Amino acid sequence: MAGKPETQIRPISNIVIVVAMEMEALPIVNRFRLTRQPHSSFPERVPWVRYGGTYKDLSINLIWPGKDPASGADSIGTIPSALVTYAAIQALQPDLIINAGTTGGFKAKGASIGDIFIISGCAFHDRRIPIPGFDLYGVGLRKAFDTPNLIKELNLKVGRLSTGNSLDMTLQDESLIMANDATVIDMEGAAIAYVADLLKVPAIFVKAVTNIVDGDKPIVEEFLENLAAVADALDPAVEQVVNFINGNSLSEL
Amino acid sequence: MAGKPETQIRPISNIVIVVAMEMEALPIVNRFRLTRQPHSSFPERVPWVRYGGTYKDLSINLIWPGKDPASGADSIGTIPSALVTYAAIQALQPDLIINAGTTGGFKAKGASIGDIFIISGCAFHDRRIPIPGFDLYGVGLRKAFDTPNLIKELNLKVGRLSTGNSLDMTLQDESLIMANDATVIDMEGAAIAYVADLLKVPAIFVKAVTNIVDGDKPIVEEFLENLAAVADALDPAVEQVVNFINGNSLSEL
Repeated sequence: MAGKPETQIRPISNIVIVVAMEMEALPIVNRFRLTRQPHSSFPERVPWVRYGGTYKDLSINLIWPGKDPASGADSIGTIPSALVTYAAIQALQPDLIINAGTTGGFKAKGASIGDIFIISGCAFHDRRIPIPGFDLYGVGLRKAFDTPNLIKELNLKVGRLSTGNSLDMTLQDESLIMANDATVIDMEGAAIAYVADLLKVPAIFVKAVTNIVDGDKPIVEEFLENLAAVADALDPAVEQVVNFINGNSLSEL
Repeated sequence: MAGKPETQIRPISNIVIVVAMEMEALPIVNRFRLTRQPHSSFPERVPWVRYGGTYKDLSINLIWPGKDPASGADSIGTIPSALVTYAAIQALQPDLIINAGTTGGFKAKGASIGDIFIISGCAFHDRRIPIPGFDLYGVGLRKAFDTPNLIKELNLKVGRLSTGNSLDMTLQDESLIMANDATVIDMEGAAIAYVADLLKVPAIFVKAVTNIVDGDKPIVEEFLENLAAVADALDPAVEQVVNFINGNSLSEL
């Protein structure tokens, strides 16, 4: 049997956590006692924020795309997440990317509020390009890095993630989410998976369910009601995942 | 009156043209006799393609995001264009970004097949985030760099551009395109405007109409029928624009 690549057998030492919203980021920053890095490796003008530190045997950086200068809103959605993932990989050369965040879940597929999901694969539901070849490109299905031992040990739920740039859901979105066989939906995951795959960095996705998409409450209302509580549930889950990662190589996840 | 910044008064010397499809890129590459740059300033694994050369007094680089490794399709849409614009600005420090490409036009707003538009402003029509502040962020309206002399001299049409990741158009898309007051639509412009604005590089948009969105033919069918012809109409327009730019400073555009 051929030897595994060196990165597969040495313990993981350098991880980057990509998070879209400040309310999701700060509990994780506090839990790992990360500190804001004033002289970041990013261009001067971008609003991207990096928190860094050492936790157990790991160098951890958390990247948040910051507030949009024009509107003051958190820079959610696919474009800022793709950009910070690209820039963070270039600057920090991580062994592993973790995208942590809140997500909408389908109860018909087994999701409940507060559930933590590890994602098996990500795809887009708002890139409809009905030309052969381009249709598959639009869907952009990418597998997450396989972590069977982590999932078993932490007893986490597993499901597919579908990503789109809107917080609401049109009928077209819904039918493509179903076609993607998604249990949970977000606004960043598939973009982060795309960039990680482009640069051949393993990526995993830890998602906490803030709202039930196929429930009775309007998506936006339930999202806002539960965001703070679930953002707080996200950071213990990320800690569990990081504790499992610590001391293990990629092939042991 | 305070003096203008140095970049405003010296002639433009370094431009980057961002193009989404190979069929749009190659006529421009040939027209300016650009050559493929084998050792590009981009990471090794990305499919992004850079063509470079000197034309009159200008250093010109054309960047195309290349073929998606997974599907073989051209890497169209907002994410690859945002990434290459970011990477090209970092690597090449251009004075000006030109996004050139094909576009769908609304005849009710004065667009006809083969028209060349200079864009006054770009916004998104597929980022619906109905939370105060986030709604404006989602629309993401950004003005293009103002070029009154160029528009007058070349007698080009001017209009707003609306960007989305799908080639078709749902009712929700249509209503947001109308809200954006767009004459033409594409799949990249607002993402390129976003990155250029983030890094404070002036950006202009040259768009050739390939299909009439509010006409009788299905969008995809007309797009495919006209793509080659209009991609050929795009490169003389880009040449006209570049000829006007040559020898002028930003404030003279």
